[in-house]
Amino acid sequence: MHNFRAAARVMEKKRRGAAGAPPDRGPQGFQTTPEDPRNPDPDRFYGFVFQDTDFSKWIEAAAYSLAQHPDPDLERTVDEAIDLVCAAQDDSGYLDTYYIINGMDRAFTNLRDHHELYCLGHLAEAAAAYYQATGKDRLLRAACRFADCVEERFGPSPEQRKGYPGHEIAEMALVRLYEVTGEDRYLALSKFFLDQRGTRPHYFDEEARKRAEVEGRPGRPDADPRRYVYHQAHLPVREQEEAVGHAVRAVYLYSGMADVARLTGDRELRAACERLWNSITREKLYITGGIGGTRHGEAFSYPFDLPNDTAYSETCAAIGLAFFARRMLELSPKAEYADVMEQALYNTVLAGMALDGKSFFYVNPLEVHPAACRADARLEHVDPVRQKWFGCACCPPNIARMVGSVAAYAYTENEDTLWTHLYMGSELTKKAGDTLLRLTMESAFPWEGRAKLTVRAETPAVCTLAFRIPGWSTASTITAPDGVRREDRDGYCYLTGTWHDGDAVSLEFPMTARVRTANRKVRENVGKAALTRGPITYCLEQADNGADLHLCRLDPVRISEAESVPAEIGGRPLVMLEVPGLREEAGDDSLYRDYAPAKRKAVTLRFIPYYAWANRGEGEMRVWVRI
Amino acid sequence: MHNFRAAARVMEKKRRGAAGAPPDRGPQGFQTTPEDPRNPDPDRFYGFVFQDTDFSKWIEAAAYSLAQHPDPDLERTVDEAIDLVCAAQDDSGYLDTYYIINGMDRAFTNLRDHHELYCLGHLAEAAAAYYQATGKDRLLRAACRFADCVEERFGPSPEQRKGYPGHEIAEMALVRLYEVTGEDRYLALSKFFLDQRGTRPHYFDEEARKRAEVEGRPGRPDADPRRYVYHQAHLPVREQEEAVGHAVRAVYLYSGMADVARLTGDRELRAACERLWNSITREKLYITGGIGGTRHGEAFSYPFDLPNDTAYSETCAAIGLAFFARRMLELSPKAEYADVMEQALYNTVLAGMALDGKSFFYVNPLEVHPAACRADARLEHVDPVRQKWFGCACCPPNIARMVGSVAAYAYTENEDTLWTHLYMGSELTKKAGDTLLRLTMESAFPWEGRAKLTVRAETPAVCTLAFRIPGWSTASTITAPDGVRREDRDGYCYLTGTWHDGDAVSLEFPMTARVRTANRKVRENVGKAALTRGPITYCLEQADNGADLHLCRLDPVRISEAESVPAEIGGRPLVMLEVPGLREEAGDDSLYRDYAPAKRKAVTLRFIPYYAWANRGEGEMRVWVRI
Repeated sequence: MHNFRAAARVMEKKRRGAAGAPPDRGPQGFQTTPEDPRNPDPDRFYGFVFQDTDFSKWIEAAAYSLAQHPDPDLERTVDEAIDLVCAAQDDSGYLDTYYIINGMDRAFTNLRDHHELYCLGHLAEAAAAYYQATGKDRLLRAACRFADCVEERFGPSPEQRKGYPGHEIAEMALVRLYEVTGEDRYLALSKFFLDQRGTRPHYFDEEARKRAEVEGRPGRPDADPRRYVYHQAHLPVREQEEAVGHAVRAVYLYSGMADVARLTGDRELRAACERLWNSITREKLYITGGIGGTRHGEAFSYPFDLPNDTAYSETCAAIGLAFFARRMLELSPKAEYADVMEQALYNTVLAGMALDGKSFFYVNPLEVHPAACRADARLEHVDPVRQKWFGCACCPPNIARMVGSVAAYAYTENEDTLWTHLYMGSELTKKAGDTLLRLTMESAFPWEGRAKLTVRAETPAVCTLAFRIPGWSTASTITAPDGVRREDRDGYCYLTGTWHDGDAVSLEFPMTARVRTANRKVRENVGKAALTRGPITYCLEQADNGADLHLCRLDPVRISEAESVPAEIGGRPLVMLEVPGLREEAGDDSLYRDYAPAKRKAVTLRFIPYYAWANRGEGEMRVWVRI
Repeated sequence: MHNFRAAARVMEKKRRGAAGAPPDRGPQGFQTTPEDPRNPDPDRFYGFVFQDTDFSKWIEAAAYSLAQHPDPDLERTVDEAIDLVCAAQDDSGYLDTYYIINGMDRAFTNLRDHHELYCLGHLAEAAAAYYQATGKDRLLRAACRFADCVEERFGPSPEQRKGYPGHEIAEMALVRLYEVTGEDRYLALSKFFLDQRGTRPHYFDEEARKRAEVEGRPGRPDADPRRYVYHQAHLPVREQEEAVGHAVRAVYLYSGMADVARLTGDRELRAACERLWNSITREKLYITGGIGGTRHGEAFSYPFDLPNDTAYSETCAAIGLAFFARRMLELSPKAEYADVMEQALYNTVLAGMALDGKSFFYVNPLEVHPAACRADARLEHVDPVRQKWFGCACCPPNIARMVGSVAAYAYTENEDTLWTHLYMGSELTKKAGDTLLRLTMESAFPWEGRAKLTVRAETPAVCTLAFRIPGWSTASTITAPDGVRREDRDGYCYLTGTWHDGDAVSLEFPMTARVRTANRKVRENVGKAALTRGPITYCLEQADNGADLHLCRLDPVRISEAESVPAEIGGRPLVMLEVPGLREEAGDDSLYRDYAPAKRKAVTLRFIPYYAWANRGEGEMRVWVRI
C-alpha cells in the first residue's frame, strides 16, 4: 500500500512537471528497506523488489471472494485499492512501484532479479479475476497498459529486447489476459517469453553486462552455472527433460507452457510439459503433494532425493503444482493429473494454513523435531509451528487466492463435457445446447468416498458429465440414470446422454487406510511406510503418540488392521487412523553398544491428517514411519 | 615460504631504516590473495591469514621424522627454513608475516579472526619439536621471543590486554614451551588465556569496537550469539558443560585445559575437562572416532545428532581429539581415554590420508553417494574421493605431525611407571632408578590382538609396566614373568616388580567382529548396525558390494557369523569381514506403491576398514547398515 502511495506521488509530481532527481542509489542498484518502519518516509520504497505482488494477490483473492459472496464494503475497499494502483501507473503504462519510486531509467535492466515481469503477472491475474468477478475493468485496463508497455519493448523485432521473466508467472498471466480480452498479442508475448528462455547467449548475462557498462563495472557472465538452472533458463524450454531449479518458478513456468500449448496446439511444447510433469510426479514428488527437496535455491533436488526433515516443500510450490495439474487436465483430461492436484491441495496446500486460518507454514517438512529445528543450522528454514506472517509473505495470499478459486480446480469444461475432478460440495451450471443445467454436488469427501450430483434442468439436455475415478480408489460404484451411456477413459467415467430434471449420479469410492512405501531409490524412506486414506496423507504427531517418534514402528504382521476413527482437532472433524504398532525402548545411556534385538512393546499408533499437524502446540511429527 | 621471504624483506628494510608506507588496505583490514599466482608480487602477502602455520607444521613434522630417522639433507633444508623464519621476525619478537607485511600497527587488533596467536602456537610446537629432535635452539629462541612479545602485552596487569586466541592452540603450545624451557611465564600465559576466555564483556566485541573506532565505523557487539559458541567463548571455560562450536578449536582448547590442569593441579579445570570429555564421548562421537556433526561452523552439533552423510568430522578434529585424549591420560590413566584415542587414530585420522599417502580427506562422512555429493548443495563440503591438496591445507600437515609423533600417544610415563596405550611395533627406553630398560614391542595389531614386550636390561630394575586392556576386548590373557605383581585398575593391567634382561610380557586380546548399535537417541542410526573388529571400524564399499548400499541389510539371524578374511587394498594387507546379509530388490519404477514385504536375496556383505575406503576409485560407502 505504502509503495503504491509513494509511486502515485511520484506520478503526480511528474505530471505536474515537478519530478526531481531520483533518490540516492547504491552502486549495484537501489536501496530497499527490508521492513516497514513506524514512520515510513513517504517517498521511499519499502520491502522486497516484488512487494507489489502481495497487493495484487490480495486483490485477486478478494475478487474470488466477491464472486461467491458479494460484499459491498469489501468491493469498495478493493475499488479504492485499485484507484491507488492506477494512480501509481506511469503514462507509458509501466507499473512497478520499485522503479517508479527509485528511477524508471533503470526499468527492465535486471529482469533476472528484479521481478518486474513477475509484478506484471500478478497484476494481470488480479485484474482478470476482478473483472470476471465484478465486470469492472479499471484494473484490467491498467494491466493491459502495463502488458502493452512490456509488449512494445520485448519481442522478436530487431529493435526489441530478447528478455524473459526472472521469476515466472507472466507466461500464464498473459494467457489469462488473452483469454479475458481476446487480444492475440498477449498470447504471442507469453509464447515469446517461453521461447526466449534458455537461449544463448543468456539474456541475464547480457543485461548484467549492460548494467556493468552503465555503472562502469567489469561485466562477467554468471560464474555459477547452477544459476541458470535456478531460473529454468539452462536450456530452451522445449528441450527441458527434468524439473529443476526454484520449485515455485518451475511450476509457474510449466503452467504457462501448458496454457500456450493448449491454445496454440503446439505439440512440441505439450511434449515438454508431459516430460516435466513426469519428472516431477515420478521422481520428485513428496507423498504430501509437496515439491522442492532442498532449501538451497528453494529448489527441486536430484531425482528421488526427497529428504523428510530438511525438505523445503514450499506451500506456494504445491499451489503452483495444482496450477500445472489443472492446465495439464485442460490439455488432456487424465485422472493422474487430478490425482496429483488433489494430493497437493488436500495435504501440503492445506497444511500451509492453520485450522483457524490465522497462521501459516512457508516450508512443509515431513518430519520435524522441534529441538533440532532450533539447534541445527541445516534446519533453519524449518519452523516447527506456523508463523503469523513472513518477511517474504508469498504463501499466505497464495493460499487465499487458491482457496477462493478452488472451483476452477474441481471442474473444467468444454462445450459438451463437464469434468468433475475434485468432489466437494458445490453448485454450478453447465450450458448444454440452449439449456442451462443446474448441478448440485453433495460430497462426504475427504472422509468418506461418497458423492452425489443432482441435475436440475427446465428442459432435458444432452451433454457429457465426466467423473474422475480417483487413483487411490481400489473399487468404485457409479450409479447413473437409465439411458445414460458410460465410458471409462483415462481414469474418468464419461456419462453421456440426455439429462432430465431430477437426474442424479451417485458415486462411491470406498476409502480405506493404505500403507504406502516409497521407491527404493528414495534412500531416506527405505524401511519405512506412510499411511494414506483417500486423498489424505497421514502423519504421527507427538500429541497423540508421545515423543521420540523415531522409535515407533508399524507392525508388519498387523499392518492391515488400521481403523478409521472419527475425531476432532481445533474444533474440526476429521478421521484419525489407529494402527497396531510397536515402540522400541530407548535402551541404556551408552552411545554405542553391542547389538541385541530391540525390546519393543505393542502400542496403538495414532495418525492424523498431515494438513492438521502443529495445531495443538509444538511437538514432533513424522509422515514416514519405520516398518 | 613466500610470505616469510616477503616479511624478511620488510624486516631488512626496517633495520636499514628504509621502511616505506605499508601497502594499501581495504576498509576492514588487509587484502589477502587467496591463491599464489605464477608471478607473485614479492612484497605482498598471499594465502589465508594463518598461512604461517602450514610452514610451522611442516617444520614440526620434519622434526619428528629427524628424531627417528636422521637425515642431513632434510635437516639442512629445515635449518634454511628456520633461518628464513628468523629473518622475518620483528625486533620486538613479533612474528606473524601477515601483519609484518601489511603493517604491524594493526597487530593484535583482531584476535578473533586473524589467528596471530594460532600462528604463535604452531610456531612454538614446531620450535619445541625441532629442539627436542636436534638440540638446536634457534627456532626455539624465536618462538620464545614471540611468546615474550605476547606475554608482555597480554596479562592480568591493568595496562595489559585481556584477550585470548580466536583459534585455540597457543594454550597447549605455551605449555609445551614451558615444559621445554622451564619458564613459568609461559604456563602462566596459557592459564591466563584459558581464564580470560568467555568472560564478559566479550573481548572479541571490545576489540571489534576499538577497530571500528580507529576506522571511523560504528562498532556493534556481535549480532549472532552463536558466534561466541563457535569460539568456545560463550562461557568461562570452567563453567562449560557441553562440547560446542568449531570442533578443531574445541579439542585444542580442551587439550590446553588438560595440560594446565595437570601442571597446576587445578581441580576445577580438571573437572571441566572431564565434563567436556564426557560430552564428546557420550553424546557427540562418531563410531569412526570423528567429531563435528555439522559443516555449519565445522562444529559439534547438538547431543546425539550424528548424521552420516552430511557429517563434517574433519580430519584435524580427530587429531585434536587424540591430543585431548592423551592429555586426559596424563591427568589420569584410564583406558577409556586410550580407547577413544585409538578409535580416532585408527579410523578417522588414518582415513584422512590415502593408502599411498598422496591424497587427503578434510571431511570424513560415514555415508557417501558420489552422485549426491555432486548434485546436492547440502553435501558440497563432502568429497567422494581424496584430494591432492586443499586451499585451507590444515589437515595434511596435521596428519604428518601426528604420524611422526605417534609414539607419544602409544606410551606415557612417570618416574616409576610406563603406560602402553597403543600396541604398535616399537623400541623404547624407560629409566628405572639408575637402570635404562630397553623395551621392544612386537605387535600384530590392528589385525590380531597379540603383542609382546621384551625387556633388555644390563641390571635388573624395579618399575611398573602398565598395559591397556582395550575396551573392545571381551577377554584378555596377559602373561608376565614370575614374581611380577599384577593389579588391574581403570582398564590397565599394572605389572610391578623387578625386571630382568629377557623378561617378556605377552598380551592377547582376541579380536572378533562386533556388531554395534547406536544409542536410540541417534535418530539416524535407529534400525542400523555397524561392524567393528578390535580398534577398526568397518564400512561397506560399492567396490565390494555393488551400488545401492542402502538396499543391503545385515541378517539379524546370522549376525554372529561374520568371518575375518585377510585381504589387500592398494597393496596393503588388512582384514575384511564377510557377513551374511540380505539385499532388497529395487522394485518397480513407481514413486509410491502399496506396501508389500520387500523381496530379498541372501548375499555376503563384504566390509573393509573405514580408513581404507575410497582407495579404489569413486563409489558409494556406508558405515551404518540396516539390520
